[in-house]
Amino acid sequence: MGSNMNYESVMKLALERGFYFPSCEVYSDAQAGFWEYGPSGVGLKNKFLELWRRELIRRDGMLEIDGSQIMSKSVFEASGHLGNFADPIIRCTKCHSTFRADRTIAEITKIEIPESAELEEFDSAISQNNIKCPKCKGDFENTKNFNMMFRVGIGPEEEEAYLRPETCQSIFVDFPRLFKTMRGKLPLGIAQVGKSFRNEIAPRQSLLRLREFYQAEIEVFCNPAKLDEMDRFPEIQDTVIRVQTDSEPVPMTCKEAVKSGVIPNKFVAYYLGILTEFYEKTGIDITKSRFRKLGDKEKAFYAEVAFDFEVETTIGWLELVACNYRSDYDLSNHAKKSNEKFEVMDNDEKVLPHVFEISMGIDRSLYTILEHSLRDDREHDRIVLSLKPYLSPVNVGILSLVKKDGLKEKADEIFLNVKRKCDAFLDHSGAIGRRYRRLDEIGSPFAITIDHQTLEDQTVTIRKRDSMEQSRINISDLDSVISSSISFP
Amino acid sequence: MGSNMNYESVMKLALERGFYFPSCEVYSDAQAGFWEYGPSGVGLKNKFLELWRRELIRRDGMLEIDGSQIMSKSVFEASGHLGNFADPIIRCTKCHSTFRADRTIAEITKIEIPESAELEEFDSAISQNNIKCPKCKGDFENTKNFNMMFRVGIGPEEEEAYLRPETCQSIFVDFPRLFKTMRGKLPLGIAQVGKSFRNEIAPRQSLLRLREFYQAEIEVFCNPAKLDEMDRFPEIQDTVIRVQTDSEPVPMTCKEAVKSGVIPNKFVAYYLGILTEFYEKTGIDITKSRFRKLGDKEKAFYAEVAFDFEVETTIGWLELVACNYRSDYDLSNHAKKSNEKFEVMDNDEKVLPHVFEISMGIDRSLYTILEHSLRDDREHDRIVLSLKPYLSPVNVGILSLVKKDGLKEKADEIFLNVKRKCDAFLDHSGAIGRRYRRLDEIGSPFAITIDHQTLEDQTVTIRKRDSMEQSRINISDLDSVISSSISFP
Repeated sequence: MGSNMNYESVMKLALERGFYFPSCEVYSDAQAGFWEYGPSGVGLKNKFLELWRRELIRRDGMLEIDGSQIMSKSVFEASGHLGNFADPIIRCTKCHSTFRADRTIAEITKIEIPESAELEEFDSAISQNNIKCPKCKGDFENTKNFNMMFRVGIGPEEEEAYLRPETCQSIFVDFPRLFKTMRGKLPLGIAQVGKSFRNEIAPRQSLLRLREFYQAEIEVFCNPAKLDEMDRFPEIQDTVIRVQTDSEPVPMTCKEAVKSGVIPNKFVAYYLGILTEFYEKTGIDITKSRFRKLGDKEKAFYAEVAFDFEVETTIGWLELVACNYRSDYDLSNHAKKSNEKFEVMDNDEKVLPHVFEISMGIDRSLYTILEHSLRDDREHDRIVLSLKPYLSPVNVGILSLVKKDGLKEKADEIFLNVKRKCDAFLDHSGAIGRRYRRLDEIGSPFAITIDHQTLEDQTVTIRKRDSMEQSRINISDLDSVISSSISFP
Repeated sequence: MGSNMNYESVMKLALERGFYFPSCEVYSDAQAGFWEYGPSGVGLKNKFLELWRRELIRRDGMLEIDGSQIMSKSVFEASGHLGNFADPIIRCTKCHSTFRADRTIAEITKIEIPESAELEEFDSAISQNNIKCPKCKGDFENTKNFNMMFRVGIGPEEEEAYLRPETCQSIFVDFPRLFKTMRGKLPLGIAQVGKSFRNEIAPRQSLLRLREFYQAEIEVFCNPAKLDEMDRFPEIQDTVIRVQTDSEPVPMTCKEAVKSGVIPNKFVAYYLGILTEFYEKTGIDITKSRFRKLGDKEKAFYAEVAFDFEVETTIGWLELVACNYRSDYDLSNHAKKSNEKFEVMDNDEKVLPHVFEISMGIDRSLYTILEHSLRDDREHDRIVLSLKPYLSPVNVGILSLVKKDGLKEKADEIFLNVKRKCDAFLDHSGAIGRRYRRLDEIGSPFAITIDHQTLEDQTVTIRKRDSMEQSRINISDLDSVISSSISFP
């Protein structure tokens, strides 16, 4: 039974079942592009990150750091963000509304101009196609660049600083200290999970284009002369990845991808392989994924080779991860600007490491997991969120059939025994069928019901989410149910 | 053997062993008050938060959310932060340096004026005591209020918004939706972990006064008429808490505290009790803690009754948690400003809930855990970080005695088997004694050494951090060592 739900179904679930909802929604000055995770969303996110740590960070012996979100001006002068990280915007001379030039042109004329194009290209498309303000039909001013970083002022003198637009800059700036104190050896992966901030002109589609969003970024520092010396390559050489260089994604093993030259070296192929294995375990339908090789105009300004990991959803292909070979762009710029040494020793050779980046959008990944897991089970008149048990915000629901006759107390007692070990949800009230359906929607793989027989023989009914099968088990066997619900593959 | 280390010893450890270090340190425009967690710090923090979830959130059936850090202006108009959240500052007329008025006066004259005093009080203390600029001996301008929130501009029109100065405001603003969709029942705890931001005039002492810092806040919504109806009170009634209303902390059970009137009701006592049990499990010396009742001038502007949870360190008593009874201050202000309904049903009664807050500083808590766990074991010429095993960033070190003779490969094989289950650290090089000492400093409770005998009989040497005892165990018994290292109490 495949997924048969769309963006609106996921949104309805998110709002009604505490996955996510708009920030500051009671106020009229709430700004677009800011969303909150509710309790179900926090549970899913934390477990997703635990899986990410297992499958990428610990598997590969990477280091994880957690740095400041506010960073100094120098960082973004060196990184190029102060100069380059801008959207082309157009402002109406009449009503003063502002739009993104590339999007407005594309919506009206279907002409796709990359956001990194020269400003004159937008201006001439606007005049040639006689494009007017969509709101008031007024004329546009010339296209300008709008820097997407949020500026903040530090201290009473308001020293210039910025909210980071990507988490990786602290990894680059901290690299010399981390390599030295943590006894680094190339290749070395350093990772960070956290918020990044981009002052988008047109945030939209809830978690898909946010102004404040979560990234999980990995920067792997390597010796560029050794990109085909990868001890761990055999671990993933037979893992199938789907690479699209032309019009269609083509499934191939990592080994084949390197041999045929589709992926430039074992080093890059290894990380695309472990990334694929990670996403398979999230429950995303991996046959709907692709690594799409980006053309020169599409790539970020710092990338030498770039593959976007994209997944097909009901609203099109979503970019979940950007995999960029950034070469020594970042370290050499920070070295120049700061006058600090960023070279390290690789055995007896002094190198300025190159960087391969795996930059994951957490919010979009969670949206995709939800969409791929949600189905409308019309036969049984229910919506089911078939999350992998280890990602489910609720591992087990504990329900008393009725509140009276000591069943509430028995359910409380069972709950007390399990609540610190897993995420259990205790529910005493409402029709049992409705309570089951609610647990199905939150993705709880199991429901346990305490009834009158429980008081006699210490058994409970266990109901499985996906099959709806019910059977009786001893209370003493609950621990094994819980471990199968929480243990990672 | 008690702790015999001080602030400087912790700082040295933090810098050398990857617990924390200054942000943007390679740049000269790095701002004070911003620090990064290195790999050891991230490990400790994540495990501290997992313990917090077990002991407070899951234990009590609370909800956890994760909201935006940038919030609308209206939120802070309603919360009072735009009007009240300010530090008194003084600026030198000659060199234009800025200082906090209260601190400067206290440092020079020992006169303690609360930061919430009227501005004239500072001015008269300055003129009466003839206080001059500590830098250039110039005269001061009159005292001003400096709002500690960071302002950001949203979109091209730069709509006014702020980085949150505390995580709890999203909990208040989101309360109506959360109560409804999550089937809330009073009392209901809602929690959030995340970054908060305060534009401190004088950040100092690394993690102790930051401009960007981590909070774990819990807001318990309750019916103010039922503060002595607390079903779960018996769970903690015999837990000893140390309450200071006068000059000395007095140990007493939660039951005694309520009976004697030191704590106003069972509701507040329950949360002080579970908070104490949590901190006991972090390894902080709980006999050095106190709940200090705040006087009227010391309390935050929204608090009706307030207890600070403080712990004694080598640099004095540190406030780790503020426990504030905020009454309906927040909900009634947000209701008024937004015109939304914040009342909920408690059985058949409509109530505007009161709020009891447990506002924890994560960074300060981690500092205190480090200081209380660190000791100088001079007898054995080592520094030992005796963290609780479940909080240690490294659960087990895996060391090959030498690299050759197949010992490296055997160690790699053992590492491969355990690395996803726990935080293992693989180390092949350096004198074995130095490698043990390094693991002692990171707090790893166990080290496993692979030597020539391992290849013959499949045993390894296990060394315990605290006792330095060594013994041989079978490789097949490693799993039980690991589970004892990672399992929470």
